[in-house]
Amino acid sequence: MLTSMKSIIDKALTLPRQTVAVACAQDAEALTAVAEAHAMGLADFILVGNTDKIKAIAERIELDLTAFELLDARGEACGAAATVQVVASGRAQILLKGFVDSSVLFKAVLDRDAGLRNGSTVSHTVVMDVPGFDKLYLLTDAAMIIKPDLATKRQIVLNAVKVARALGNPDPVVGVLCESEKVNPKMPATMDAAALVEMNARGELPGCRVGGPYALDNAISEQAARHKGMKDPLAGRADILLAPDLAAGNIFYKSLMYFAHARSAGVVMGTRAPVLLNSRADSHQTKINAVALGILMAAKGA
Amino acid sequence: MLTSMKSIIDKALTLPRQTVAVACAQDAEALTAVAEAHAMGLADFILVGNTDKIKAIAERIELDLTAFELLDARGEACGAAATVQVVASGRAQILLKGFVDSSVLFKAVLDRDAGLRNGSTVSHTVVMDVPGFDKLYLLTDAAMIIKPDLATKRQIVLNAVKVARALGNPDPVVGVLCESEKVNPKMPATMDAAALVEMNARGELPGCRVGGPYALDNAISEQAARHKGMKDPLAGRADILLAPDLAAGNIFYKSLMYFAHARSAGVVMGTRAPVLLNSRADSHQTKINAVALGILMAAKGA
Repeated sequence: MLTSMKSIIDKALTLPRQTVAVACAQDAEALTAVAEAHAMGLADFILVGNTDKIKAIAERIELDLTAFELLDARGEACGAAATVQVVASGRAQILLKGFVDSSVLFKAVLDRDAGLRNGSTVSHTVVMDVPGFDKLYLLTDAAMIIKPDLATKRQIVLNAVKVARALGNPDPVVGVLCESEKVNPKMPATMDAAALVEMNARGELPGCRVGGPYALDNAISEQAARHKGMKDPLAGRADILLAPDLAAGNIFYKSLMYFAHARSAGVVMGTRAPVLLNSRADSHQTKINAVALGILMAAKGA
Repeated sequence: MLTSMKSIIDKALTLPRQTVAVACAQDAEALTAVAEAHAMGLADFILVGNTDKIKAIAERIELDLTAFELLDARGEACGAAATVQVVASGRAQILLKGFVDSSVLFKAVLDRDAGLRNGSTVSHTVVMDVPGFDKLYLLTDAAMIIKPDLATKRQIVLNAVKVARALGNPDPVVGVLCESEKVNPKMPATMDAAALVEMNARGELPGCRVGGPYALDNAISEQAARHKGMKDPLAGRADILLAPDLAAGNIFYKSLMYFAHARSAGVVMGTRAPVLLNSRADSHQTKINAVALGILMAAKGA
């Protein structure tokens, strides 16, 4: 089982080389990531976007573009659509977001005619390597689905389980995060949690073990769970952390990045090819991490 | 302006000595905190609860109880009610939660006859000292109010502003946390954020400057805000972080404690005396921090 971001990159380097299409590559951090990932031997890249701007940025940051295919597409919407087409046609196996608004990119990815939909619920899972912790946490959904209902939460979990499997974890523990560890009708997320646990017990949510509702401490700390007198054998042992909604998931994700200095790699699942979503404010290292995770996911055919 | 948990304790040591009533003091971590805080000269304590258990625990952890007043009250509900009475009568100025469920304690605190209500909205603010950051963040509400509406959010902010003032910050910046930094009708918290900003501009939310909606990175990192092209001069400069709801607030709070190794001190405002709420899983140091914050709040008459 992979337990660090470095081990994800090391594993990706052992897999057959794949091609990543970068949507709107006219961004210094994205181009730095592309150059570094290519130099490491991680992947090949097709740079889609405003080629004039791409060349100007490359010159400014002294980057050699000769190893990359460039594909001209001006404007965010056009760049996103052209990148989706490159992936849909099979010329690239992975899509990496560059300097484009997530909502614009998703319009292209989710387009029912030209897009990458495969009929599944599309959700985002981010892998977190937090300093001082000897395991990877998978957090979902911190980027896409605003207020998931119970059926959507089930799909979000199933998508995250695929990511866990690509990381070599055959039986991940899902911790359903809530306001409290008690089922409380005033807190609907706690009722969803109880339902997810029961669906898991009945075989309706396979491939994982589901525990909850948990406050965050009960999900990740066996000691905190014991101190509260919890008997649940999964308490404190979560691998996948399911957020109650996007606000909680996004704030949690960003608190790990900014306050706990975590390294992360995010991937969108439920599409025909992995889509690597990241914030434009992310560092190039975060983008390299995402590429490595995308390679693992694409190799699994997930 | 105080910028660390240590400076809160140092400041509390300069203030007139006050008395803290401990609700259900039959807990090793609580008694260790009480003994340590007393030895430091931080406060005097009245230990309310099961005196047999209190004495047995004190013996086990080799703790001298002679300096403390003991008040026998068996059972959580009874212990909570008796502690509230000690504070309401003026024998103690601050209430510290011991080994009692928060919901039981709050029933006693909020009791309209015997309790500590003063007519205000009762909400929780937690002061966070995160390693590597040279300021204190105030986070609210991470413990009490499940789904605040706009009017309640305004009251929660006003309560937190009192805490900021007790810490010597006369003009705190409130960052309204959301799923995104854009106002989006599909995300009601972003509309609340825009309304709070406008209420602040009109003088209807005084004593602070309000910015938002912010994703967490835009609230605390000027660099992240700039990279996203935000022009808002308050972006990245928040002192008080207002969570969209309890789930997000509690998960954020616990992620700072468990993943970012923050030190915290929590206080309930909107009551006639500061009520120090903490998790039973918290360390005795967290309880000492809360006592120090309570002393600052009680000294302000807040």
